[in-house]
Amino acid sequence: MNSLPIGIFDSGVGGLTVLRAVRRRLPQESVIYLGDTARVPYGVKSRGTIERYAVEDAGFLLRKGVKMLVVACNTISANARERLRAEFDLPLLSVLGPGARMAARVTRTGRIGVIATEATVESGAYERAIRVASPNRDVEIFSHACPLFVPLVEEGETDSQVACLVAEQYLAPLREKRIDTLVLGCTHYPLLKPVIGATIGANVTLVDSAEATAEETAQLLENRRALNQSSSGGVSRFYVTDAAGRFHKIAERILGEPLDYLEAVEVWGHDKLESK
Amino acid sequence: MNSLPIGIFDSGVGGLTVLRAVRRRLPQESVIYLGDTARVPYGVKSRGTIERYAVEDAGFLLRKGVKMLVVACNTISANARERLRAEFDLPLLSVLGPGARMAARVTRTGRIGVIATEATVESGAYERAIRVASPNRDVEIFSHACPLFVPLVEEGETDSQVACLVAEQYLAPLREKRIDTLVLGCTHYPLLKPVIGATIGANVTLVDSAEATAEETAQLLENRRALNQSSSGGVSRFYVTDAAGRFHKIAERILGEPLDYLEAVEVWGHDKLESK
Repeated sequence: MNSLPIGIFDSGVGGLTVLRAVRRRLPQESVIYLGDTARVPYGVKSRGTIERYAVEDAGFLLRKGVKMLVVACNTISANARERLRAEFDLPLLSVLGPGARMAARVTRTGRIGVIATEATVESGAYERAIRVASPNRDVEIFSHACPLFVPLVEEGETDSQVACLVAEQYLAPLREKRIDTLVLGCTHYPLLKPVIGATIGANVTLVDSAEATAEETAQLLENRRALNQSSSGGVSRFYVTDAAGRFHKIAERILGEPLDYLEAVEVWGHDKLESK
Repeated sequence: MNSLPIGIFDSGVGGLTVLRAVRRRLPQESVIYLGDTARVPYGVKSRGTIERYAVEDAGFLLRKGVKMLVVACNTISANARERLRAEFDLPLLSVLGPGARMAARVTRTGRIGVIATEATVESGAYERAIRVASPNRDVEIFSHACPLFVPLVEEGETDSQVACLVAEQYLAPLREKRIDTLVLGCTHYPLLKPVIGATIGANVTLVDSAEATAEETAQLLENRRALNQSSSGGVSRFYVTDAAGRFHKIAERILGEPLDYLEAVEVWGHDKLESK
């Protein structure tokens, strides 16, 4: 059981920042990653659709055999966490909780910014989770959707003039709120960390939910005595629902190393074509 | 039969530029529009997936009762046109052909640029269609993918500083090729026409495939004596597969008028949730 892989899933490539952080923190663990690239992005879709897709994604990983699930997508965490917990009987961690808890821990002034996709911001899930994690103090939370950040990252525009201009546009309103902590509430955003950091200012602590999630993943497995004790390093296998070539290119850019195993699969059980 | 609506479909909101052009050219015709917003964007997906989605989209419109189909998405036109013709027995026009034919007609020097999504550029469909439409002359075609244009349009950033900077980045290489004609090979791009025109230069003719398609739609219906003879104006009905609120906002911005009828629907016949 302990030698089973950790299952990590996302709507596309964003969750690879979580995979990267988990691999660094737990090099002996194997990982199976699923990116639902046929239906990416989830961030502009409705709650019902996101729930349905998330259940299909998680079901695929369960059939592959995993010892825990990591929801490496803030949009899925914000919209489908309860549904996933109700459907699946398996340890489950989603990026949103660890990011919110770390923000509550590091803020000094209690003025916290959250940047995320439209669907995550609209769900209000970060605000709720940060308040739950700050039971004995007042916090002020300022959320802002940054819809162009995801396409910028996917096009590799992480330090271009365009990226700086877009960051200025999104972050100027938050700078004015005098926040001292900024949650990168989308797994794509850690790849823009240098630009975001320079724009928001050095006095603001950036909370990278990918790193926070890797830390809690390690704690969860340790508490359940489920860490892989093997001394050989773990392996990563990657599955996508479409366009493996494009994923391959972006994934190698994000991970900074070649992929060992990549396969295109279907995760939607009954979605057959009707032919005439 | 002649009073039946025209069916227009796209992966999202882009095809609304085609609907707008058709409504202007043929105000007496009714139109049903389908935007597959649950699975948008198609432009980064594989040919097989695009074909499958396109067949489901077209099938939905057929069940609603339409007298012809207009594929208002260059990615679908480039990747699924043959498949749609094979599956459905109905007059079918797709944006790619009219745009290519107009480019062949208006170029003086034969040096033509095409800007489109990655999937359209990779298909080579515009190059082939422009060559077919230019049987007696040499043409040189320069294609360039502009992946950030779609998210810019969907976020309403059509004349911002960011839009200008992105346009400069994508169009500078084409300017150097001394093209005299530029095909806007994605239905989102007409909304960036002022920025694209200013960046590429006033000596380059922009071919708006939405307008070209509206013109050929009128010709097709006239040739088949299928124009609506009613003297009252046509009506437009809109269907989306997800997130009707977001579509509504963007659609009214693109069309410049309120939507009469908008409904969220499912187009995938067998894609039911498996509950435990």
